[in-house]
Amino acid sequence: MVKLDQQNRKTYTNQIIQTLVDQNMSDFRELFFELHPTDQIEILNSVTKKQRSAIYKYVKPEEFAEIFQGLEVTKQKLYISELQQNYAIDVINNMPYDDVADFLAELPETTKDLYLSKMNKEDSEEVIQLLKYDDQTAGAIMTTEYISVSSTDTVGNVMERIRLEAPEAETIYYLYVIDEQLKLVGVLSLRDLIVSSLDQKIEDVMLTRVRSVETHTDQEEVARMMKKYDFLAVPVTAQGKLVGIVTVDDIMDVVDEETEEDFGEISAARGSLDANISAFSAAKKRSPWIIMLMFLGLVTAGVIGEFEETLEAVIILAAFIPLIMDSAGNTGTQALAVVVRGLALGTVDRSSVGKLLKREFGTGLMLGVICAITLLIVVPFLYPEGGIMLAAIVGVSLFITLSLATMVGAIVPLIINKLKIDPAVASGPFITTINDIMGLIIFFSIATALLDYLPQ
Amino acid sequence: MVKLDQQNRKTYTNQIIQTLVDQNMSDFRELFFELHPTDQIEILNSVTKKQRSAIYKYVKPEEFAEIFQGLEVTKQKLYISELQQNYAIDVINNMPYDDVADFLAELPETTKDLYLSKMNKEDSEEVIQLLKYDDQTAGAIMTTEYISVSSTDTVGNVMERIRLEAPEAETIYYLYVIDEQLKLVGVLSLRDLIVSSLDQKIEDVMLTRVRSVETHTDQEEVARMMKKYDFLAVPVTAQGKLVGIVTVDDIMDVVDEETEEDFGEISAARGSLDANISAFSAAKKRSPWIIMLMFLGLVTAGVIGEFEETLEAVIILAAFIPLIMDSAGNTGTQALAVVVRGLALGTVDRSSVGKLLKREFGTGLMLGVICAITLLIVVPFLYPEGGIMLAAIVGVSLFITLSLATMVGAIVPLIINKLKIDPAVASGPFITTINDIMGLIIFFSIATALLDYLPQ
Repeated sequence: MVKLDQQNRKTYTNQIIQTLVDQNMSDFRELFFELHPTDQIEILNSVTKKQRSAIYKYVKPEEFAEIFQGLEVTKQKLYISELQQNYAIDVINNMPYDDVADFLAELPETTKDLYLSKMNKEDSEEVIQLLKYDDQTAGAIMTTEYISVSSTDTVGNVMERIRLEAPEAETIYYLYVIDEQLKLVGVLSLRDLIVSSLDQKIEDVMLTRVRSVETHTDQEEVARMMKKYDFLAVPVTAQGKLVGIVTVDDIMDVVDEETEEDFGEISAARGSLDANISAFSAAKKRSPWIIMLMFLGLVTAGVIGEFEETLEAVIILAAFIPLIMDSAGNTGTQALAVVVRGLALGTVDRSSVGKLLKREFGTGLMLGVICAITLLIVVPFLYPEGGIMLAAIVGVSLFITLSLATMVGAIVPLIINKLKIDPAVASGPFITTINDIMGLIIFFSIATALLDYLPQ
Repeated sequence: MVKLDQQNRKTYTNQIIQTLVDQNMSDFRELFFELHPTDQIEILNSVTKKQRSAIYKYVKPEEFAEIFQGLEVTKQKLYISELQQNYAIDVINNMPYDDVADFLAELPETTKDLYLSKMNKEDSEEVIQLLKYDDQTAGAIMTTEYISVSSTDTVGNVMERIRLEAPEAETIYYLYVIDEQLKLVGVLSLRDLIVSSLDQKIEDVMLTRVRSVETHTDQEEVARMMKKYDFLAVPVTAQGKLVGIVTVDDIMDVVDEETEEDFGEISAARGSLDANISAFSAAKKRSPWIIMLMFLGLVTAGVIGEFEETLEAVIILAAFIPLIMDSAGNTGTQALAVVVRGLALGTVDRSSVGKLLKREFGTGLMLGVICAITLLIVVPFLYPEGGIMLAAIVGVSLFITLSLATMVGAIVPLIINKLKIDPAVASGPFITTINDIMGLIIFFSIATALLDYLPQ
């Protein structure tokens, strides 16, 4: 296999493109099939539409299936529209069922049904089954191409079967043992098999208590289990019957996807983290957040408007608006990050929530004390005209604000998670804005109450 | 193997603890060794010190090594201090080299040297070698327990060797082919081996162009490559010689670690994302950020102080401070999240930086236009006393601020990344504060310039 790296990638790509220009099919095939499918995808994505149509001619449907299943959905939709229908059907018939289901799930109903009707009956039934599982569950990410054996088989028998089925199966490194009712009764790794003697029975070398997930198990839960136990694959059951497996490479994608979600949550940039979309798409995706947050900003403006008289009396109070807002926002975001990350890693669950909230409240109190003391020392130097009273008002307000802001940052995402509302509501900027409003109300209320003691 | 889940975990744990209380070694061993090492660790972490010392008596050092290597470093340090020295040495001698190196790297020099001097000479030399690699590189996370074969071996030969070495090796699913100079010349998977006939030569079934990383390759780069090509393991070379392999379970940990770093970066909660540390530790870790950011808040206060006269003339301007600050902060954080995530996933590199910045600038301009138009409509309704001029000042300021804030959010982490400064400097709150200051200067400068046109 040719290894493409930064040095030779360009030269090699140009060589391949030249074979397309020259309409030299045999040279093209020789060069192209020396590459890893991941690199073949990069070539496909970097050529023109005309060059692609040459590739479709030079590559057989069953070969193209290998490439097609690794493409992003947007590219899949584009390229399939460029293919002749028979070729397209052949491609789909040669793909693993889980990849077909993932692709079809993204198509409009009518197109989806068209492809399903043209597929081999047996294949389409398997795919229809997979399409039924909810998004982001074990059922939706599992593959049905695994090797299952019977507990009464011998090791030698199974080795022979693996030799035959290896090219088809997604992984051969775990073998799943099922009984006559298709119930999952055991598991053994290829490692276990290899160190056993050929005439041993599978039931004597298998592990009987096998960890599995259900088809409706959340994909994040599956990822946590596989990371915790360092599994390369985990079996998926429905009513105890083995129906598929989830492999570690699928889980890597899940981890990326979930991290993406969490990142969006912290930064209110959900759906626009992709560095490759256009400025217009990015603006379109971000603008609802920014506008909604701007209206919340107008609410904050209203709060300050309410205290206009206080501000007019002691204009210097305005200078501390950013300080109160920034500090409230920052501690809130820190607490939010802890909770979002803890929920993702599974370190925060029902049993530990109370402990975590107590921890965050304690942290908020301590941060508040430290900041208040610092301000009591610094503010009289910077704003001597305000006297000690100004420093006291700012310090005490910040103390109360930080204690509460930390709790808001921790509690809101927990409630959201519990109520299963769209977690974007608990995004960093939202929590920041809530904390801003709270902080400013505290600050101006205290200042208004003590207005007579402030030098005006 | 007994499968612990939420239902039976408690009962089973109590049963095991009871055997410890009863000093019943055989019952303990029977129950305990039915568990997966990951669950054994949970038992160990949940019992008292006295119960642990019983466990040390009932479990042999070579058995305890299996548990010890999976522990967190803080627990490793605690438990090893409870062990008798000979037992501790035996534990270490029975651990994989990479886990020993990871553990020793966390100990003080003298303790580390003590253990190294007591270890088997051959083992300690391997570990010393591993300790030389920089943190977060392929060398630091690789294992040296892999199976290497010669290209002139036959498939049957190698199968026989795997049978013998399988219990020792970290993975047997990839076999690495080396020549007499230990140079890496090929790779084959166990799958390839199994489908080949026993008398074939390895050189006829191996892939000759094998993807490898160097010992000094950044672990994040290794993770990206493994995710991209769906590898279960990747070989590590030094001057072309095979010195180790990185396996996919190590990479899962790397991905978590890097995500943790990126999360800390966005939220300025670096090092305190762990939900299990005490309130005091959390406050200690977060307070430097909060205090530093508070001082930056005082700088922002200074900016507003500079415009005190303008504020005194038109007090309603104060109400828009939060709006300007929030919007500047939010767009900056969105752009930051895109860049931090892009750098982590490898979708943002030198070749695409220019494109990304142009994209972000375009996005910022569009967001600015949308927000400005919205404000031009809304503000005259909410604040009729300010007239159209107030709306114009707020709208234009926000337009300029958003355009620039998006760029700041995108450029600062790129510069930081390029200069290899501590990336925490580019954290969300820092960028928010920079953008706050910038936004307020723009807003008050425009307002001051147009002060005569504002109703006072």
